[in-house]
Amino acid sequence: MEANCENAGIVPQSGFVINRSMKGNENLTPVSALGEFGLIERLSGKFAINPEKTIRGIGDDAAVLQNSGEKKRLLSTDILIEGVHFDLSFIPMQHLGYKAIVANLSDICAMNAVPDAVTVSIAMSNRFSVEAIESLYDGIALACKKYGVDLVGGDTSSSVSGLVISVTASGLATEKEIVYRDGAGTNDLVCVTGDLGAAFAGLKILQREKTVFMNNPDIQPELDGYEYVIERNMKPEARTETIDLFRESKIVPGSMIDISDGLASELHHLCRGSKTGAVIYEEKIPMDAQTKEVAAEFNLPAMTLALHGGEDYELLFTVGLEDFNKVNHLSGIHIIGHMTDPGEGVRLMTRSGGLVEIASSGWDHFREVE
Amino acid sequence: MEANCENAGIVPQSGFVINRSMKGNENLTPVSALGEFGLIERLSGKFAINPEKTIRGIGDDAAVLQNSGEKKRLLSTDILIEGVHFDLSFIPMQHLGYKAIVANLSDICAMNAVPDAVTVSIAMSNRFSVEAIESLYDGIALACKKYGVDLVGGDTSSSVSGLVISVTASGLATEKEIVYRDGAGTNDLVCVTGDLGAAFAGLKILQREKTVFMNNPDIQPELDGYEYVIERNMKPEARTETIDLFRESKIVPGSMIDISDGLASELHHLCRGSKTGAVIYEEKIPMDAQTKEVAAEFNLPAMTLALHGGEDYELLFTVGLEDFNKVNHLSGIHIIGHMTDPGEGVRLMTRSGGLVEIASSGWDHFREVE
Repeated sequence: MEANCENAGIVPQSGFVINRSMKGNENLTPVSALGEFGLIERLSGKFAINPEKTIRGIGDDAAVLQNSGEKKRLLSTDILIEGVHFDLSFIPMQHLGYKAIVANLSDICAMNAVPDAVTVSIAMSNRFSVEAIESLYDGIALACKKYGVDLVGGDTSSSVSGLVISVTASGLATEKEIVYRDGAGTNDLVCVTGDLGAAFAGLKILQREKTVFMNNPDIQPELDGYEYVIERNMKPEARTETIDLFRESKIVPGSMIDISDGLASELHHLCRGSKTGAVIYEEKIPMDAQTKEVAAEFNLPAMTLALHGGEDYELLFTVGLEDFNKVNHLSGIHIIGHMTDPGEGVRLMTRSGGLVEIASSGWDHFREVE
Repeated sequence: MEANCENAGIVPQSGFVINRSMKGNENLTPVSALGEFGLIERLSGKFAINPEKTIRGIGDDAAVLQNSGEKKRLLSTDILIEGVHFDLSFIPMQHLGYKAIVANLSDICAMNAVPDAVTVSIAMSNRFSVEAIESLYDGIALACKKYGVDLVGGDTSSSVSGLVISVTASGLATEKEIVYRDGAGTNDLVCVTGDLGAAFAGLKILQREKTVFMNNPDIQPELDGYEYVIERNMKPEARTETIDLFRESKIVPGSMIDISDGLASELHHLCRGSKTGAVIYEEKIPMDAQTKEVAAEFNLPAMTLALHGGEDYELLFTVGLEDFNKVNHLSGIHIIGHMTDPGEGVRLMTRSGGLVEIASSGWDHFREVE
């Protein structure tokens, strides 16, 4: 297969006009020029949804499908590519399987729905043994057991190189329970679960120890004191218990998203969806002490990890002021700011009292940002 | 990333025991030793389903999930890898997109359900332009429009090499309508839609013309007279109209599967699922004249294409003898044989009156069979 997706002059009788512009590379746009979100926006334009079948399509953490019963069906999907999303020289296969499931369940949680099923497709090159693939599925099985979801289907294939994992997660919720990105109002409280930046801190440690190991395989990696951040990277959890808390406390957030690309990027999504601005307070943003220590070791501002580190899988959501007392008493939930008028942008109130614009850049798989 | 999925001695505090056997390749089992079905069987053992959530999990064309309403939700997923499932030197991007959707809708049809939604994830290397990816989505959009399904979500990513497409299709049906692989009984009639072997015949022509083109790019491919088989390969259709016919005629097949890996392999699936044998009649197996001509050109028995060629996306199903009159009058449906006691195996009655065992080999992506 050569590095050009031209076709060999074949025009089948099928009603398609074959795009000859695919031959040669003159005037073609590299995907990196649009970025992941730009590409999705461009492609989304081709697809309208039929409201009799679909309540919400592209553009949120999960799609919402019509069902004949009270509960609606949610679907979310992710694709993970070796060398882009994971590096098998430091993530064991079990962890990779576990994490792949959790990342997708997190998307269902971000709609305030209860996940019930996943499908997993994999493609692998012939360097993977049956035992390695079994380890991957041991991690998948552990996650399914922990979160009470069924693995209901999938596909397996060979690949030309590397490992590809594609997961689709499904869940259920009533229409009243479902929370989108676009329901926040001015003055609503901005909240997050858990703590932020730890998964990225874990990644920095793993990358450093890999480099040491590559240079001298006799040196054992130094991981003492980094257990928390490494676990946050290698074995993240989905915030299903927060969804349960919402049910128990009769809270329905106005808007919600999971933090897979960093707080900054996700907050911009909520503000764009809801047509608001936001102010969050540096001093309120929850970070573990170990995360801050790692930031210091790498000479990075701790806030950079919280704002722009990915893969925390915490939930970012908004509630109305009337829910202040309810939310303020829930363990593991932090009020970090409030929504504003859209003209005010997305800003951080620093510890020193300054207001600074927050850039939206998170992880973009087409523009490597660090 | 090196060609070994060992980890660099890292033991995170996560409750996992890292599988050190992944280091080195002694005593490890190559995936090819099990094959695709063997691997799936081995992995499936790790997963039980919860009947409150899942009616049917792994092992059929699609999973069936519980819903609160009358209709149940079906899910099916496929992963397509460049260089394994498709060759971009002869399938245009639009066709690839169309075909990827159709292959998944076909799985929903094979459960006698009506597809309503798909998700599409892609990963692509930087050799793909925005225009090429748009062509892919043009084909996806055309298929969605034709079959009345919504594209409701997906994921886009870069890849290290090549194009990966992962599609999940969803559909709805009442529990009474849903047809599994395991419901056939002895003496039930075996039926197929359309005609068989054409997609494989198309592939042979495309492969031949590619070779000619590679040797001399000035020679235009000779495709006149091969339009039908090429279209069957490049722009297959899902048999949603058969599902509609079943509803209109009040037929519910006892068992059903779509023919993606060849009639032989699929008939073995039905027999294994239903614990029956089968006899099918060579003279009854529908083949287009063009398919037979291509078989002759390549010195292949025509029956080999019908039995072992893949990607026809026709439906193979069984009905009770009492439905003979109903089925016999439906256009595009052919009765090709009947189920037998399991001890009698899966056999073909040849034109000359001999009974021969049918091998189950279809396409196995880990054992390249032709």
